[in-house]
Amino acid sequence: MAISMASASLPIFRTTLKNLSHILDKGLAHAQARKFDPQVLTVARLAPDMLPLTRQVLIACDGPKLGIARLSGVEAPKFEDTETTIEELKARIAKTLAWLDTVPVEKIDGTEDKDITFPVGREATRTMKGEAYLKHWVLPNFFFHVTTAYAILRHNGVELGKADYLAGAQ
Amino acid sequence: MAISMASASLPIFRTTLKNLSHILDKGLAHAQARKFDPQVLTVARLAPDMLPLTRQVLIACDGPKLGIARLSGVEAPKFEDTETTIEELKARIAKTLAWLDTVPVEKIDGTEDKDITFPVGREATRTMKGEAYLKHWVLPNFFFHVTTAYAILRHNGVELGKADYLAGAQ
Repeated sequence: MAISMASASLPIFRTTLKNLSHILDKGLAHAQARKFDPQVLTVARLAPDMLPLTRQVLIACDGPKLGIARLSGVEAPKFEDTETTIEELKARIAKTLAWLDTVPVEKIDGTEDKDITFPVGREATRTMKGEAYLKHWVLPNFFFHVTTAYAILRHNGVELGKADYLAGAQ
Repeated sequence: MAISMASASLPIFRTTLKNLSHILDKGLAHAQARKFDPQVLTVARLAPDMLPLTRQVLIACDGPKLGIARLSGVEAPKFEDTETTIEELKARIAKTLAWLDTVPVEKIDGTEDKDITFPVGREATRTMKGEAYLKHWVLPNFFFHVTTAYAILRHNGVELGKADYLAGAQ
């Protein structure tokens, strides 16, 4: 079957968000095994002016949610960004996955040339065609935040390997 | 125009490899401004058992090369992995981009259901359909290594922001 806007987006988000949840499981297990507070990991950063693990995960969740909402025209639920624990972050991923499952594929397909306008920073917007928005904005951002979450945990001694990041690949 | 296997791959690789080259430029400029040897950056790692910047960049180059070669059936040039300096890494990116430009789009399009067999580790192979291979293997791996290269530099004080990573987004 030909690749489509839905097939080029939803399965990637589903697989990778599930892998992110699995990666967080390994972070939690590591903290418990070493008997340190898992919050040490959720506030960890790779640089003082980079976002901590918590925000990396929240942004990794909101990228697919907002991307699919804008492409499909289906309104996305607003979540409050109050998560602080690994369990709460995992619940946020689960909520995001559950919402993605409700969006009809046919509303995403055919949006290659749809104008998508989205906020950039606090005071500007940007407009891109649907296909460019998916390929050059949503996907790179999504993988950026998932990989950074992985890197924060890996840098803090959690035993992760590429198999954890690619775990769901069929 | 409908999204296709070529349009879902080549433009992403081109944009992101150019951004990676730009990110390396900023790393080099940072080292020169602070008067330290740029090799400090090329051998830097986020964890003792993670690959250094050099290897992250080489793998980020080989992912698109091998991915497009396998999808298209066009043989890819073999590069020797001898790069150690930022200038050499940038040349490797340029060689990779130049080769990608030679692959006919029509050889990549229509490969959604083509069986792609590729090595996994040293002693195994895996087979995936072309579309799944692109979405669940090539793209996640590619962004993983580009983001990790970014994170290594950022962790070492190079002033990078999301605009550098997304710079070429149209």
